[in-house]
Amino acid sequence: MQGSQFRLEHGKKVRLANMDPNETGSLHDREEAEPNIERLKERLEALQNMLYAEKKQSVLFVIQGMDCSGKDGVVKRALGGLHPQGFQVHSFRTPTEEEEAHDFLWRAHRIVPAKGMIGAFIRSYYEDVLITRTHKWISEAEVKKRLKHINRFEKLLESSGVKIVKIFLHISKDFQLAKLRNRLTDETKRWKFDKNDLVERESWSAYEEAYEDVFKQCSTESAPWYVVPANHRWYRDLAVLQIAVDALESMRLAYPASDPELDQLLEQLQE
Amino acid sequence: MQGSQFRLEHGKKVRLANMDPNETGSLHDREEAEPNIERLKERLEALQNMLYAEKKQSVLFVIQGMDCSGKDGVVKRALGGLHPQGFQVHSFRTPTEEEEAHDFLWRAHRIVPAKGMIGAFIRSYYEDVLITRTHKWISEAEVKKRLKHINRFEKLLESSGVKIVKIFLHISKDFQLAKLRNRLTDETKRWKFDKNDLVERESWSAYEEAYEDVFKQCSTESAPWYVVPANHRWYRDLAVLQIAVDALESMRLAYPASDPELDQLLEQLQE
Repeated sequence: MQGSQFRLEHGKKVRLANMDPNETGSLHDREEAEPNIERLKERLEALQNMLYAEKKQSVLFVIQGMDCSGKDGVVKRALGGLHPQGFQVHSFRTPTEEEEAHDFLWRAHRIVPAKGMIGAFIRSYYEDVLITRTHKWISEAEVKKRLKHINRFEKLLESSGVKIVKIFLHISKDFQLAKLRNRLTDETKRWKFDKNDLVERESWSAYEEAYEDVFKQCSTESAPWYVVPANHRWYRDLAVLQIAVDALESMRLAYPASDPELDQLLEQLQE
Repeated sequence: MQGSQFRLEHGKKVRLANMDPNETGSLHDREEAEPNIERLKERLEALQNMLYAEKKQSVLFVIQGMDCSGKDGVVKRALGGLHPQGFQVHSFRTPTEEEEAHDFLWRAHRIVPAKGMIGAFIRSYYEDVLITRTHKWISEAEVKKRLKHINRFEKLLESSGVKIVKIFLHISKDFQLAKLRNRLTDETKRWKFDKNDLVERESWSAYEEAYEDVFKQCSTESAPWYVVPANHRWYRDLAVLQIAVDALESMRLAYPASDPELDQLLEQLQE
């Protein structure tokens, strides 16, 4: 597997309806994927240590997907091995009054990961061209403007060393229904059930279209979108780990150059 | 093992020099501890899920200890299994200009975990009665005031449902020296070496005394201090996990009461 196989090209229109959310490549089950998942997790942790030590760049994962696509789950199961000290997760919810009183990128900007850190946005500023567009809370002209603002914003972050990795978790509508039922029957998950999810579900196609436009406009060379088949959670985890490892490997991370003074210090300490 | 065995009584003077940092209870090695570590991790994750679902209380781990005591390591190895979405780690460093322009508790207050969340402070507001006192940057009168402010501050947090768990990782001075040497020889750790650690090391006894006073004044019934032997990392992890699980179990967490309307919804979804 290569992370790049899930990557979308800039300017190219994709149709989510033509992409199989059940896809598992040449693999058949979790057991078969497990050794690779473990290997990638270890590699990711080693890369994070270098990122943290170097303190010159950072990584931002943007995680999007329909309700029940496993956005929370992937953060735990694929990225949960990261050192918590260097990993910050933010869930985007309905904006607060203070957030509403600013431009739509303001609240995202203040929580961008600092140098050395890895951040994950569960939902993100992309909601401002997804939910808002689907429900026609903003005009099409405003959508166009926002898509440009997003591209410029991401360019700004890249210019200070933020590697942006945008992942769409792709599930089917049937799969969502099964998960919603499961939430209602499992006591440990029932609190997650939101009646509004059933309302949003009725706008499935409108959401798909809004996503497809986001992919076309905002999957750039340096900050691409990846569509990850997510009906099989183990394949989702494997794919996201592969994408993450590829992203960090492309950053040419290195431990800081060693201070020669430290060698003298070591000699003193060993006396 | 019980978390309470590491717990300090309020008003009682302990001497760190009399507490064995090599202690491992009735256990002999990591292998023997591993099954319990795994069991406690799973239990802690289940409790975190309930805390997050309930959204009425929160947990704050305050992690203190000399340089090389394993503060970062314990967050990864004992608490690293927590869901990253509900777990926020903050390292306290030299205050910024903005932080300096406020009272010493200001910067801690703004990052206290919200309801449903678990937070860990690596170092904390306690540094303001430790490093400052050891180097005589503040007067003894000021230290006394600050200790009281800390107790009142913790009472305020408790009143809004924050469970505060304060852990001191106890190592020996020899162990620190071995770890400092190791940092200098291991390329993946060398960046962590700070020449200043050698300076701080010379104030070992003064730090111990400052800690002993903190324990006596601030180990309260509701927010106790725990001294965890940390020369053996596996025993440290086991003890911290046990303390964490005990703390969350004492909170009487519960999933939110089920909305009967959801049962009707489930029937509709199953048609």
